[in-house]
Amino acid sequence: MPLKAIAFDAYGTLFDVYSVGALAEDLFPGKGAQLATIWRDKQIEYTRLRNMCEQYADFWQVTGDALDYACEALEQDLTPDARDRLMGQYAELSAFRENAEQLKRLQGAGIAMSILSNGTPWMLDQAVKASGLEGYFDHVLSVDTVKRFKTAPEAYQMGPDTFDCDAGEILFVSSNCWDICGATWFGYRTIWLNRYGLPLERLGVEPHRIGSSLQDVADYAVELIT
Amino acid sequence: MPLKAIAFDAYGTLFDVYSVGALAEDLFPGKGAQLATIWRDKQIEYTRLRNMCEQYADFWQVTGDALDYACEALEQDLTPDARDRLMGQYAELSAFRENAEQLKRLQGAGIAMSILSNGTPWMLDQAVKASGLEGYFDHVLSVDTVKRFKTAPEAYQMGPDTFDCDAGEILFVSSNCWDICGATWFGYRTIWLNRYGLPLERLGVEPHRIGSSLQDVADYAVELIT
Repeated sequence: MPLKAIAFDAYGTLFDVYSVGALAEDLFPGKGAQLATIWRDKQIEYTRLRNMCEQYADFWQVTGDALDYACEALEQDLTPDARDRLMGQYAELSAFRENAEQLKRLQGAGIAMSILSNGTPWMLDQAVKASGLEGYFDHVLSVDTVKRFKTAPEAYQMGPDTFDCDAGEILFVSSNCWDICGATWFGYRTIWLNRYGLPLERLGVEPHRIGSSLQDVADYAVELIT
Repeated sequence: MPLKAIAFDAYGTLFDVYSVGALAEDLFPGKGAQLATIWRDKQIEYTRLRNMCEQYADFWQVTGDALDYACEALEQDLTPDARDRLMGQYAELSAFRENAEQLKRLQGAGIAMSILSNGTPWMLDQAVKASGLEGYFDHVLSVDTVKRFKTAPEAYQMGPDTFDCDAGEILFVSSNCWDICGATWFGYRTIWLNRYGLPLERLGVEPHRIGSSLQDVADYAVELIT
């Protein structure tokens, strides 16, 4: 099938969430990395538990809940000020270094682009602005519209609905392998942006392509339209 | 509502999965604890991803897939023999020390009891035998019957269907807080067996009771019927 559009995951894929870990280390010396890991793991876990039990709460709420859990698990006192600063990082993320150049290249090739993220509209709006990626995306899709987090089919369905085409005509891009597995099962063409050299998830499904930077994504997309 | 029955989660709740970690340490010195943690985390993660994407595979398959992932993530060579031995541990689990006495007490009080687990019927059958807990359970319920893992409503529905009563008339027992949150949302009366002093999950829902051993569970159940 010909390529009609690209849908990008946001956190970890377009936006570098590393700064969250650095601030956590400033606030909780010696515990920053561990806190950032538990925070992220719980954030994702809570989206899945809420999905399975039909107990949606938006990603900002879930992110705050996960932070509270992480601090209690590590027996760290989370002051209101520290909480505000850590949560505020989600509004101040930077883009990965290569992003702007590759997004410009894709835009120049005439490919429609969107974000498709678990984040709330407000979180995504802030992140797009803070990372200097305004102007590249035709759509910024938040699962908050359908009240189901990825990897629920209702979340992935936003892509085909928005671009009015089959999922197989959209290239889905994520650095999260679980997201790529879900998107592949759903029917997207997929490229896993394996930035950190992780093993493939053992779920009996594989992405159509694996890359390590947004340049690989752009190369693949250009290959698909020519 | 009066108490009609008790439904127990299996792994970690009735059966001690510690032996898995000990064997992992024998096989991969210095990496056993880490391997057991990644293995368990991935096992649970895969049940959720498969649930959300309607891609059921049974718990034996998922457990093996998670083991393969864990070994690759830690760059450990998993020989067929080592794989067989680690997987075989699931058929050789021991019960927690206090179990038999407390289950006997509950049986004596005339309370119907079941297991309700993600495990396959074969895995549960083996674990009940190996741990010496035969004869206590009126039903051993495996989600394999409905092809949906906990915390999906279809999995929890097996309790009320089996005992022909409301979920609120069944006491659900698990050492996994996420399982307890799911069961509480579903409508069970719940007690979280917090064996390891973990924080409560931040999901906006709380168990009806928290205990630290099966004696607390039995105390609570007896309280509910008297």
